[in-house]
Amino acid sequence: MVRTILVVGAGKSTSYLLDYILKKSTAENLKLIIGDLHPENIPQEFASHENCEVCKLDIFDDEARKKAIANSDLVISMLPARMHINVAKDCIEFKKHLVTASYVSKEIEALDADAKKHGLVFMNEIGLDPGIDHMSAMEIIDRIRDKGGKMLLFESFTGGLVAPEDDTNLWSYKFTWNPRNVVVAAQGGAAKFIQEGTYKYIPYQKIFRRTELVDVEGYGTFEVYANRDSLKYRDAYGLQDALTLFRGTMRRVGFSKAWHIFVMLGMTDDTYTIENSEGMSYREFVNLFLPYSPTDSVELKLRHYLKIDQDDIRWGKLLELNLFDHTNKIPLKNATPAQMLQHILEDSWTLEPNEKDMIVMYHKFGYEINGEKKQLDANMVVLGENQTYTAMAKTVGLPVAMAALQILNKKITTAGVQIPISKEVYSPILDELKTYGITFNEFEVPYLGYNPDSIGN
Amino acid sequence: MVRTILVVGAGKSTSYLLDYILKKSTAENLKLIIGDLHPENIPQEFASHENCEVCKLDIFDDEARKKAIANSDLVISMLPARMHINVAKDCIEFKKHLVTASYVSKEIEALDADAKKHGLVFMNEIGLDPGIDHMSAMEIIDRIRDKGGKMLLFESFTGGLVAPEDDTNLWSYKFTWNPRNVVVAAQGGAAKFIQEGTYKYIPYQKIFRRTELVDVEGYGTFEVYANRDSLKYRDAYGLQDALTLFRGTMRRVGFSKAWHIFVMLGMTDDTYTIENSEGMSYREFVNLFLPYSPTDSVELKLRHYLKIDQDDIRWGKLLELNLFDHTNKIPLKNATPAQMLQHILEDSWTLEPNEKDMIVMYHKFGYEINGEKKQLDANMVVLGENQTYTAMAKTVGLPVAMAALQILNKKITTAGVQIPISKEVYSPILDELKTYGITFNEFEVPYLGYNPDSIGN
Repeated sequence: MVRTILVVGAGKSTSYLLDYILKKSTAENLKLIIGDLHPENIPQEFASHENCEVCKLDIFDDEARKKAIANSDLVISMLPARMHINVAKDCIEFKKHLVTASYVSKEIEALDADAKKHGLVFMNEIGLDPGIDHMSAMEIIDRIRDKGGKMLLFESFTGGLVAPEDDTNLWSYKFTWNPRNVVVAAQGGAAKFIQEGTYKYIPYQKIFRRTELVDVEGYGTFEVYANRDSLKYRDAYGLQDALTLFRGTMRRVGFSKAWHIFVMLGMTDDTYTIENSEGMSYREFVNLFLPYSPTDSVELKLRHYLKIDQDDIRWGKLLELNLFDHTNKIPLKNATPAQMLQHILEDSWTLEPNEKDMIVMYHKFGYEINGEKKQLDANMVVLGENQTYTAMAKTVGLPVAMAALQILNKKITTAGVQIPISKEVYSPILDELKTYGITFNEFEVPYLGYNPDSIGN
Repeated sequence: MVRTILVVGAGKSTSYLLDYILKKSTAENLKLIIGDLHPENIPQEFASHENCEVCKLDIFDDEARKKAIANSDLVISMLPARMHINVAKDCIEFKKHLVTASYVSKEIEALDADAKKHGLVFMNEIGLDPGIDHMSAMEIIDRIRDKGGKMLLFESFTGGLVAPEDDTNLWSYKFTWNPRNVVVAAQGGAAKFIQEGTYKYIPYQKIFRRTELVDVEGYGTFEVYANRDSLKYRDAYGLQDALTLFRGTMRRVGFSKAWHIFVMLGMTDDTYTIENSEGMSYREFVNLFLPYSPTDSVELKLRHYLKIDQDDIRWGKLLELNLFDHTNKIPLKNATPAQMLQHILEDSWTLEPNEKDMIVMYHKFGYEINGEKKQLDANMVVLGENQTYTAMAKTVGLPVAMAALQILNKKITTAGVQIPISKEVYSPILDELKTYGITFNEFEVPYLGYNPDSIGN
């Protein structure tokens, strides 16, 4: 019997997802329906596939949405996270399984009882981050526990970066995902984590100055800045007794220290609009955040304001962005500083058609076993193939697609709103991801943690 | 005929207000009714006055509130600003005048048409800041315009500080008003102003590092940090064409640079609560915001983190607050960083019963007349007498009381929701304030502004 998978919101990150489903479609007896507001944008290689059907679908058109969902066996929502809820409610109404790569919202969480009642799997957070991070971490944590180990430390970092061969600018960074998220990253509250049993808080104005370094063999050194809430999965992972919990975002070394300049200037603020933003030169934009002077240059004012020495390596990064250029203009009306900065950055950091992205993930697991403290590190690097088959699309889309098929094939059967932290879910998916080159390197290192009883803390 | 003034919310800032009304009460035929949630706190010298009546009034008790307002001729609300609206609506219903020292909220503004229809004066922002700042500034601006001058520049600063003789700590600061407002000052959005025709924006993380200095003869040097919106009164003051508009808060020199330490640590954040705040030592509090170390001291970590040299004068300010003390504990449960910092500061910055406060205000007026650019500066210093008759209570309470009497005596007659910027209002009140020693020193100085056509800007 044919099983119908409805994918709503088939944006640029869905290439691997669609490809996976269609390649399996004949053997697995699958029919893929892609519902999108702009069906004309779906690549021909998918749209023309014999097991694929493309239809125009406005997600806010209740009738059309309900009809599409009613006609499917499982729904994959790749819409922006805030748009999942209507889809999810219809899935309850028509008794369909649901898969998303997004964080579980309170509204989605509230559907748990209904989903369980009808035996529906509502699988969320099964992309890259969240997604592969959950699965790969829980696989190792469960393994340590099965051996009798007790978890002491868990740190987990992810970064969406540019492939080494296309790492051609001074920031070692290009936009490979939503630029806006990069510009407003770390805003909205202090970062919170625990280290050796002590709570630690980092305000926005210091977040990019509290990075730690990490090496990935064959790929060099990266830096990590703290995510907002490192304690989010403490209970889900069963790490209530761990002394250190830290989650972070990876960048190439030097990015954060230079980014801190934008933070201190106030250029990343997205809460108010700038007067006369339209037509403002990059140089005028910088000058908005500097003291007035009738004679001094924007350059010297900035150097003095933020104490940037003549030979500071960050200066070249600013020049590379044409930040002091008075001919480049920002075309945005009533724009926030963050929107204006994003425009300037997109000018420099947009991937060329032939350039490739890279995903890096790094976990640290500290544990005690037989009275000994040990540490296992694990990392993963995935390179994109081109601008359609990106590492981001691969690491987000494949776990989603695999989960969907496992659900249809009744390999994943536990009902309810969930994230992929049980062996039933992560084990077959991690195994299958390996066949696509998504693998983790594991290696033992000396235990990172300290003795919490010593002085200073 | 007796005129009845109802004062609601007779907190500690109302001594001069009540005193003024009662001293005039016999000659002016006034009856004062004080409605307060805690009438027992009203000092006997007022409560026992023959023209005074004190009653318990819960402002959220609609019936009691309406009755009290219906029985008065004019209402003075000294409640917290957010509580004015019910009083104001009753004033419309029962056709009573209203005076407050608070900023005009949108809800109050919305009553303008109703107030006008019934010929009611709803006078707001007639305390110190806002209040005396409006009146003194408009008096000089109108004078400059009457002479044919064209306003180019307006800067205005106010500070609530400690009197010079009681200026006994390294911060030259003690709490003379709501401590919470001091701790969360400048948060909630970038400061915005214009200087020589150029918009300027300062984010929170830099606000206390962009101070300017100002001298007040006989009182030494002060520093000023920018208020959030310097452009707020541009239209009200008729300064649409002025090239420079800047409003700020005054502190003694060195305060802001030391306060910046708290900002960068994240100690002023009021948006989240700290785990286990209750019983935490001051030292542990500081350590929340510093990187973990098994061996290094909190002191050295802080010096290193914020690059504070061995001989930095700010260090003594931190020691004076016992910030590294491990015996002093914070008793607050589920407290925000800002609440915990406030507790620590109140430990050191609370006025002794015999100590006095000081209010300082400073205006700069740049203008062009007969092709010449000129500048007039004006400043005011008011010293408190004791902890009841404070400079703050005087400068807030007297203008409120005077406005109330002027309204009853039909000297102020223009109806509607308003602030004291018209000559009808400010002229008699400023004159009367002089008889209470609230006076401005004026002096000509070289024009501060620059040539906006010159390089750099």
